Amino acid sequence: MSHSDAYIRGKAMAEATNPGIEDSLAARYDAILPGFSSSMMEVAFGHYYTRDGLDDKTRYLATVAALAALGGQTRPQLQVHIRNALRSGATQREVAEVINQMALYGGFPAMINALNAALEVFEAEGAENG
Amino acid sequence: MSHSDAYIRGKAMAEATNPGIEDSLAARYDAILPGFSSSMMEVAFGHYYTRDGLDDKTRYLATVAALAALGGQTRPQLQVHIRNALRSGATQREVAEVINQMALYGGFPAMINALNAALEVFEAEGAENG
Amino acid sequence: MSHSDAYIRGKAMAEATNPGIEDSLAARYDAILPGFSSSMMEVAFGHYYTRDGLDDKTRYLATVAALAALGGQTRPQLQVHIRNALRSGATQREVAEVINQMALYGGFPAMINALNAALEVFEAEGAENG
Amino acid sequence: MSHSDAYIRGKAMAEATNPGIEDSLAARYDAILPGFSSSMMEVAFGHYYTRDGLDDKTRYLATVAALAALGGQTRPQLQVHIRNALRSGATQREVAEVINQMALYGGFPAMINALNAALEVFEAEGAENG
Amino acid sequence: MSHSDAYIRGKAMAEATNPGIEDSLAARYDAILPGFSSSMMEVAFGHYYTRDGLDDKTRYLATVAALAALGGQTRPQLQVHIRNALRSGATQREVAEVINQMALYGGFPAMINALNAALEVFEAEGAENG
Amino acid sequence: MSHSDAYIRGKAMAEATNPGIEDSLAARYDAILPGFSSSMMEVAFGHYYTRDGLDDKTRYLATVAALAALGGQTRPQLQVHIRNALRSGATQREVAEVINQMALYGGFPAMINALNAALEVFEAEGAENG
Repeated sequence: MSHSDAYIRGKAMAEATNPGIEDSLAARYDAILPGFSSSMMEVAFGHYYTRDGLDDKTRYLATVAALAALGGQTRPQLQVHIRNALRSGATQREVAEVINQMALYGGFPAMINALNAALEVFEAEGAENG
Repeated sequence: MSHSDAYIRGKAMAEATNPGIEDSLAARYDAILPGFSSSMMEVAFGHYYTRDGLDDKTRYLATVAALAALGGQTRPQLQVHIRNALRSGATQREVAEVINQMALYGGFPAMINALNAALEVFEAEGAENG
Repeated sequence: MSHSDAYIRGKAMAEATNPGIEDSLAARYDAILPGFSSSMMEVAFGHYYTRDGLDDKTRYLATVAALAALGGQTRPQLQVHIRNALRSGATQREVAEVINQMALYGGFPAMINALNAALEVFEAEGAENG
Repeated sequence: MSHSDAYIRGKAMAEATNPGIEDSLAARYDAILPGFSSSMMEVAFGHYYTRDGLDDKTRYLATVAALAALGGQTRPQLQVHIRNALRSGATQREVAEVINQMALYGGFPAMINALNAALEVFEAEGAENG
Repeated sequence: MSHSDAYIRGKAMAEATNPGIEDSLAARYDAILPGFSSSMMEVAFGHYYTRDGLDDKTRYLATVAALAALGGQTRPQLQVHIRNALRSGATQREVAEVINQMALYGGFPAMINALNAALEVFEAEGAENG
Repeated sequence: MSHSDAYIRGKAMAEATNPGIEDSLAARYDAILPGFSSSMMEVAFGHYYTRDGLDDKTRYLATVAALAALGGQTRPQLQVHIRNALRSGATQREVAEVINQMALYGGFPAMINALNAALEVFEAEGAENG
């Protein structure tokens, strides 16, 4: 099997930000869902995160907005994308403003929960960089 | 009653983008909810849309992301904020990319429905500008 | 088959507020879902709406709150329960206040959409009573 | 009080899969909500899980689909129904495929969270059966 | 550019059930989102609907379950998948039972709205087949 | 800067039920979101919780209804408002009835999760009052 273009560019992005990701997905999920790990490379990364037409910082902030508005149940993924937004050049303030804005769309409890998730990331990043 | 700072800056922004908005909200809602129209100026505009720390374009794109991910039931509001994003300098492509990205978070039907809502706005704006 | 207590009290309440409801549900749904209409009498009305421990007005206002917060996609049911709340003694103002409060929990678009649904009911009720 | 048909068939199914369930619900909830435990037998089991027209395996897989798509906040109930699906003859692969499919409808974070919940059940069932 | 395996099998399935689908998606969306139509072939069909490990009928019924539970805002997609379920061998009764079951997970208004959507499909299919 | 009427009445209510709340919000959030703590006083309390036209008990029960129907992800806020409802004169039974009713709108898992959250509050309040 030769790899598709989408797989190749998705894999490159995924491994650059998270070395070993395909192997660790494979070890956890492929026995029960054949092809799951390569599918993640091709679909989520190859067809979405690597698209042109939107800068990475805005793409991640839009993702943070959506996950904050959808509510606290996707907290692990929200924290991943807050970190991605920061690493793409967003300031902590911008991340916090995007989350704060979500009070109007996802409600105040969703906003506060997301803000608390962000504070944890800010502290961890600060510790790393300090 | 003197107006609060939040009311004053919210009212200024709201009337600049939508002349007569407070009066038309008042005519429709204040009889049943006393103070509703001025509350909208102070809260939604004064405490959210006029905040510093995030450029308007990103703020509107984040809002488009959230409304797309939350699903088609907020279509009128989604279209208002798509228009706001375009008028703050976002390209149609950027709006479409933000919505497309939401397939991963709000699901494919929500994404397609939001994309269809965006196409209507793009056509109307094109007609206006053409 | 003898009827259960829950069916009997549910049926009585349902027919009192909506004469002929079981027959019209039966005509529409029982061919494809055997027993659907009597099940609605027994379950929704018999096990929920006829319970003791909460006055009808508060029960309906709580239902209006939930449907408003869940968003505009349940508009027909929201309007039914706004009407029920009014007929149980709630004022239009109380209905509107409950909906307005939902801005904090279901977001501003959900609140505005529900308020618009309420205004339609208020006008129809006014016309009936006028 | 004589028991309704729905109570009788619901109680039989509930006790067969979960001996003592009505008593344990009663001990926990009936003081604050009179009749709650028998209501669960009659409603959830008597009016839904014991219906004809759909085999148990498909009914449980449909339930797993819905809970996965609705997101991680119903994790305990999701795990109960994954176990029910397996015990009704679904393979682990079928459960995983149903969950994987939900990426398209509930989004990728909801899918991954549900898949992780399923892996825990698979391990526990494996340990029991091993 | 050569096509990936996922594109080839997804395209085959999509065109078999909906001839001309890629071209009509391209005409509508590719100008604003380059590559959107081929991406749908590769992702939704190639990576999800064509997977092994679950029969088509169960896959579509699970999808109907999820869309019913998520609520009426995805009505067009719900109707597409009800039709797919019927064409994969599900009976109208099985579709209705799956939807009815969702009362417990998505609430009664979502269930009734989905049942109404199903009745429309059943009538249209009946007219076609009659 | 002089304070708005909404800030003054919101602050009074917030501090009466939760002494020191603005300072503790400020310590946690104002560095990353300038003005957040005073904004909470003015918006959530000043523009919503202190409004006329609805008694506190009904307002809190409506909020409990909405948070229960929206699902377990807002558990901390649900517990705050259950406590507020009790302190405004609602009985434990009324709180439980409102939550139970939500089975019809938010689904059975959301209802059970909210009921479990309520039982924790009832026990803690009982211990305090015992």
